[in-house]
Amino acid sequence: MSTVAAGSKGRVLLAYSGGLDTSCILAWLIEQGYEVMCYMADVGQEEDFEAAIVKAKAVGATKVFVEDLQRTFVEELIYPAVQANTIYEGVYLLGTSLARPVIARRQIEIAARENCQYVSHGCTGKGNDQVRFELAYYALKPDIKVIAPWRVPEFYNRFQGRKDLLEYAAQKNIPVVQTAAKPWSTDENMFHISYEAGILEDPDVTPPKDMWKLTVDPEDAPQTPERIVIEFTKGKPTKVTNVNTKEVKTDALDIFNYLNQKARAHGVGRLDIVENRFIGIKSRGCYETPAGTILRVAHMDLEGLTLDRQVRSLRDSFVTPQYSNLLYNGMYFSPEAEFLLAAIEASQKTVNGQVRLKLYKGNVVVEGRSSSTEKLYDMEESSMDVQGGFSPIDSEGFIKIQSIRLKKWGQTNKLI
Amino acid sequence: MSTVAAGSKGRVLLAYSGGLDTSCILAWLIEQGYEVMCYMADVGQEEDFEAAIVKAKAVGATKVFVEDLQRTFVEELIYPAVQANTIYEGVYLLGTSLARPVIARRQIEIAARENCQYVSHGCTGKGNDQVRFELAYYALKPDIKVIAPWRVPEFYNRFQGRKDLLEYAAQKNIPVVQTAAKPWSTDENMFHISYEAGILEDPDVTPPKDMWKLTVDPEDAPQTPERIVIEFTKGKPTKVTNVNTKEVKTDALDIFNYLNQKARAHGVGRLDIVENRFIGIKSRGCYETPAGTILRVAHMDLEGLTLDRQVRSLRDSFVTPQYSNLLYNGMYFSPEAEFLLAAIEASQKTVNGQVRLKLYKGNVVVEGRSSSTEKLYDMEESSMDVQGGFSPIDSEGFIKIQSIRLKKWGQTNKLI
Amino acid sequence: MSTVAAGSKGRVLLAYSGGLDTSCILAWLIEQGYEVMCYMADVGQEEDFEAAIVKAKAVGATKVFVEDLQRTFVEELIYPAVQANTIYEGVYLLGTSLARPVIARRQIEIAARENCQYVSHGCTGKGNDQVRFELAYYALKPDIKVIAPWRVPEFYNRFQGRKDLLEYAAQKNIPVVQTAAKPWSTDENMFHISYEAGILEDPDVTPPKDMWKLTVDPEDAPQTPERIVIEFTKGKPTKVTNVNTKEVKTDALDIFNYLNQKARAHGVGRLDIVENRFIGIKSRGCYETPAGTILRVAHMDLEGLTLDRQVRSLRDSFVTPQYSNLLYNGMYFSPEAEFLLAAIEASQKTVNGQVRLKLYKGNVVVEGRSSSTEKLYDMEESSMDVQGGFSPIDSEGFIKIQSIRLKKWGQTNKLI
Amino acid sequence: MSTVAAGSKGRVLLAYSGGLDTSCILAWLIEQGYEVMCYMADVGQEEDFEAAIVKAKAVGATKVFVEDLQRTFVEELIYPAVQANTIYEGVYLLGTSLARPVIARRQIEIAARENCQYVSHGCTGKGNDQVRFELAYYALKPDIKVIAPWRVPEFYNRFQGRKDLLEYAAQKNIPVVQTAAKPWSTDENMFHISYEAGILEDPDVTPPKDMWKLTVDPEDAPQTPERIVIEFTKGKPTKVTNVNTKEVKTDALDIFNYLNQKARAHGVGRLDIVENRFIGIKSRGCYETPAGTILRVAHMDLEGLTLDRQVRSLRDSFVTPQYSNLLYNGMYFSPEAEFLLAAIEASQKTVNGQVRLKLYKGNVVVEGRSSSTEKLYDMEESSMDVQGGFSPIDSEGFIKIQSIRLKKWGQTNKLI
Repeated sequence: MSTVAAGSKGRVLLAYSGGLDTSCILAWLIEQGYEVMCYMADVGQEEDFEAAIVKAKAVGATKVFVEDLQRTFVEELIYPAVQANTIYEGVYLLGTSLARPVIARRQIEIAARENCQYVSHGCTGKGNDQVRFELAYYALKPDIKVIAPWRVPEFYNRFQGRKDLLEYAAQKNIPVVQTAAKPWSTDENMFHISYEAGILEDPDVTPPKDMWKLTVDPEDAPQTPERIVIEFTKGKPTKVTNVNTKEVKTDALDIFNYLNQKARAHGVGRLDIVENRFIGIKSRGCYETPAGTILRVAHMDLEGLTLDRQVRSLRDSFVTPQYSNLLYNGMYFSPEAEFLLAAIEASQKTVNGQVRLKLYKGNVVVEGRSSSTEKLYDMEESSMDVQGGFSPIDSEGFIKIQSIRLKKWGQTNKLI
Repeated sequence: MSTVAAGSKGRVLLAYSGGLDTSCILAWLIEQGYEVMCYMADVGQEEDFEAAIVKAKAVGATKVFVEDLQRTFVEELIYPAVQANTIYEGVYLLGTSLARPVIARRQIEIAARENCQYVSHGCTGKGNDQVRFELAYYALKPDIKVIAPWRVPEFYNRFQGRKDLLEYAAQKNIPVVQTAAKPWSTDENMFHISYEAGILEDPDVTPPKDMWKLTVDPEDAPQTPERIVIEFTKGKPTKVTNVNTKEVKTDALDIFNYLNQKARAHGVGRLDIVENRFIGIKSRGCYETPAGTILRVAHMDLEGLTLDRQVRSLRDSFVTPQYSNLLYNGMYFSPEAEFLLAAIEASQKTVNGQVRLKLYKGNVVVEGRSSSTEKLYDMEESSMDVQGGFSPIDSEGFIKIQSIRLKKWGQTNKLI
Repeated sequence: MSTVAAGSKGRVLLAYSGGLDTSCILAWLIEQGYEVMCYMADVGQEEDFEAAIVKAKAVGATKVFVEDLQRTFVEELIYPAVQANTIYEGVYLLGTSLARPVIARRQIEIAARENCQYVSHGCTGKGNDQVRFELAYYALKPDIKVIAPWRVPEFYNRFQGRKDLLEYAAQKNIPVVQTAAKPWSTDENMFHISYEAGILEDPDVTPPKDMWKLTVDPEDAPQTPERIVIEFTKGKPTKVTNVNTKEVKTDALDIFNYLNQKARAHGVGRLDIVENRFIGIKSRGCYETPAGTILRVAHMDLEGLTLDRQVRSLRDSFVTPQYSNLLYNGMYFSPEAEFLLAAIEASQKTVNGQVRLKLYKGNVVVEGRSSSTEKLYDMEESSMDVQGGFSPIDSEGFIKIQSIRLKKWGQTNKLI
Repeated sequence: MSTVAAGSKGRVLLAYSGGLDTSCILAWLIEQGYEVMCYMADVGQEEDFEAAIVKAKAVGATKVFVEDLQRTFVEELIYPAVQANTIYEGVYLLGTSLARPVIARRQIEIAARENCQYVSHGCTGKGNDQVRFELAYYALKPDIKVIAPWRVPEFYNRFQGRKDLLEYAAQKNIPVVQTAAKPWSTDENMFHISYEAGILEDPDVTPPKDMWKLTVDPEDAPQTPERIVIEFTKGKPTKVTNVNTKEVKTDALDIFNYLNQKARAHGVGRLDIVENRFIGIKSRGCYETPAGTILRVAHMDLEGLTLDRQVRSLRDSFVTPQYSNLLYNGMYFSPEAEFLLAAIEASQKTVNGQVRLKLYKGNVVVEGRSSSTEKLYDMEESSMDVQGGFSPIDSEGFIKIQSIRLKKWGQTNKLI
């Protein structure tokens, strides 16, 4: 195991993006006397990893690690979230939150292996991500030390705006791509992209048409719908079939990527909200979650056919909101996550079957669902025409018993 | 007050629709020796009330009451449901459930006034509506007696199919409209229409294009979007403005009807699901809820801007599911509904402001929101660029404290 | 497999107690043309099984089965309830509910084995137990047929009071024990005894001193306390030690019986309440739950030391009330019970350690607790004197961040 | 309005107890250049306020305010907590938490009136009380500045133990009472006293007999029970009658003090637990809550008789735990508290009646309850003997309908 050089303050593993901010942080950490290694997680974002490696080394990183975490991300985080129908504040599909645990875990694993006493990241001091990264760090390696430059006065007082960073970059010979900065920030992974800050801080400003990156504008999407069938096993997607093209995908990662491709083409998954950050600040965010939106619609629909009413109701009123909040708040590595994941798994035993979907200009339309194994839906019993399963007289007793309590209440309340 | 004729078994107030079923029930009740009055509730469904009155009288009803309940429906049931974001099993907007309390209450009021010992309805013995009507009846007038012919063996054994009803209608000179019966059943009111039974009982059958009645197929909806602004006061819509046409509506009923008209034109509000009936049977239903879908999107969005995080979270995890279940299960007239409505009202004090929406081919797109009175959203505090509201160092402490528990747990669990 | 005799209406397995009611039911079922077998479950109640067997055969039962279910009851029902801290309406420890699943399951197993088309029981038509037995029957063997004589008009109209039963017993030569009937009903098992009906129906009548059967009146209990230590493994008691006598028990059944003996001697576990039955009727019940009361106190205390705060909070706010309600309502054999039991098990991994208790005149006093394996409690970190674990400055940030949302709210609300 | 002297750093209102810690803080703040006023809240604790005033002035306080908050405490905090059955982690009655809002609010009111820019307190940096005080301060007066010396490095590094404080007191001529310090800390008010820290930090140490201050040891309590009757109106106690002595109290404060007196005499309300502090540390605490324990037992009992099942269940599963957590975590002045208090009030409309209690050696035994106005309990309907209210056949239908779902599930699961 390599040891930290004499005179060094210690070795840092920096979560590095290749952008202006983390490049300046890299240079600044070195300037402070640390040995710095860089870590880049490939969670499906659009990124020039090769260029970033070159850049990090040029700035002075002693090592650069690029880790492909896509399969882990899909299998360990995204699909359990599909099983649980996770959603924050009724609308947000948690795309950033879901990626953080896989990114942070690999960072800690490498930090441990490479004998780094410190990890560092470029998150601001007002957001959710600092919390998500650091709670994961501390749970996974309680003795890790964290350097969050945007919370270090010497750093944030020195770099008060983009101009300061650009000057520092010039001084440190950090190459800067000469594109105009977009007037918003983004975070991208294979599950979603987020847009916030800048012009979006006014919640009444409509996002410009060219902001949206992943999905086609529904107004520009094809006039012709496309039909797919998604098969689920214990609540996880195990097969997708394109009815039009006959394409079939059965690998976890392939399924997800294929759904992303189709959803993007049909303008599926845009969202524009004001949400409540963990730290108690309201914040406006725009999101694109293409495959995730399709999977949510399909999974919830199949649960209608295959999941018991009470299990669904208990899961909905408890597990889904609690697991969603926990993800949002960065507590994936926690005893309560273990506890809730056990409940999620227990809830999905019967969620087996397929859902037929139509994609059309932003809409995900369910056109039918079936299951060859689950029998909770019984066409005859359900029928209004057929006398199946039970006698109508039973309903009479059911209602009368339900009314006992209400009659007692009605007797002492003048309701009409 | 009129008295029941000698020799009569008593006086019945029948919830009458003018259709084949309730016309046969009317004739049958008379045949059984009851005096029967008919009651029709106008909750915004498409119906020829005049023709129905004539028909009921021809069959033998001693009185026919047609009651316009549209305003009550909107103001007392629909708007509080908008405030609470009510939804059943994550998708269904409860259109039938919401109408039942206003219909049942007026029926009981008239039954009391007209000295009817009995009320009757044409609901089947397998569905939710029998429960909803009767629990309302019993809560409002605990001594009322209910005749549910579809649960009376003499009735349901005699009328085993549409053919039996048609024969009976012919025998009783009940005029029958000579249209082919649709291969499904519907329930319509101004909030929604439902389709179920018949060919829909196979959950994998795609509903035929001509089934959908209220909304334009998104594929046929206009290529050009339309923009509206909805203003809310304490969580209820108080103004709608059409950005394109400059039309403005401020009356509760006008607002709702206008939103219905726009949503219908743009294909907004279709749904196809398998749900769990109160009595424990899974059932497939298709729904159109035009204005309700727009209002849900807009109201939830405005809550993002104006509602405190904790109030929202508590309301979401408790009041919304409980109030939704209660409506679905027919327990609107109950002590728990009173209790929950007090909580709903308490939650909406700050939900004041407006939401800008785009309607386009089935999509309801939020384009911005604002509030002139509420200040929980603070652009400066929210900003990632500005040092407003608090010091980044505070976040450090926040995270450290949150991590204490997780570190302790991590110390005894080998997580990496 | 024996077959039902020609001319018989079928074979019934009757849940038989040996008392007047079920003896008359036995005779009456035979009179109706059924072949009847009797089934008695030994769940630890005080009962003369030998005498009951003789009696049942004398009345005409073709077979009588007495099944010892005590160990199953303790291991499968009682200890998971201890793990979950189950309680109904804040006070009732569910003693009757817990026994029903083991009794009903064995009855159905025997009915299946003995080729009985019917099962029968002596529960009244107003109580919870009819529901608990029958929902278990139907879930375990959906095609079973149930005869509940107290809901059969021919039966309940004929036997309108104890006098009618006594006359019928005399006529059928059913021996009746010549003790005066107590002016209340009881249900007893090793977990508890319940008292209801009769003079207890007036909720303001204090139960007579001689009603309480299992426990010594606290006023008559020893003046000297007794001290025990209970050890738990994954939330289940695995050892009890008497500090005074040095007695030790480690077998599941022995532990429970020993705790019962000690609790009874010290007057522990009495309760007098008005509860809400599943069918919506309020009902007064008195209960003695000796060992169950000690185990509840001890288990909850140990969770304080060994269970993570969030897991505890989630389990308390969701699993405990839902699992308790489910037991009360007779839905132990259900998908939601499976789901909740998975969550209960997941919650108890760390509940390992021991609790020291003092028993004295109705009180169960915790005198200390410890765990050799769990480390969530950290004396140094907890200490107000020692600077351990984290810096006080962190608390400053924690509070400041928590206050952001409250300050915003305070700014627009005149609170002082 | 008085103005701060020139040269002063500003004016501080210090929450002062008269003890060693806050006296040193007072001296230290003056030493730092602040003008300091002292504030003492009388919430029913045993305290020599006169001596404290003299002492504070001697040390240099420019003003000393002693405020009697007992009635406010009982009426605004304690009785709503009784209505809500508030309890933390299943056992702790929240005595310290309940007092903090009234103490903090008055401090802020006086700070505003006296033109103090700062408030200060003597809470440590590891406990709950710093959070409770400061969140209240910030919500009530968002621009207030807080000095928490035990989180200020200059202070806590200088005063590392009691010895340092004693030396400083000597140096500043602060009189110190020459009693040996107890090996634990306490917080007392009229609702409870808490003991923690010191020898109690080992959770397996049994508290010494002479620690308990408010209540008689049950082993030393009278051999003769005493009987009282508590009357509630909308869930709040409005009358207490001593059956033995015929004493009657009807004033809110008198009732509470009388119950305290009786409970203390009979050894009611001791508790010894390990709890989870808001900041995520486990902590051992012992408590005495005499009157609060009686009121909890009585109120919950009366709810059995007078509160609807569903309202009770919803309140129990949601409002009670959330309101309890909120109090524990110091968020009484918050939008969610307003929201929950509205729900609490809505839940208590029918909680009217009286409960008869026996106090005996630590036990609070319910001996009966009644209500002259509420009629939800119906002796005839409840009776197992009388055919009242509904037909047993209704139960048959009720059970059959409830079983539909379970049968479907049983058909695909081999349960026996």
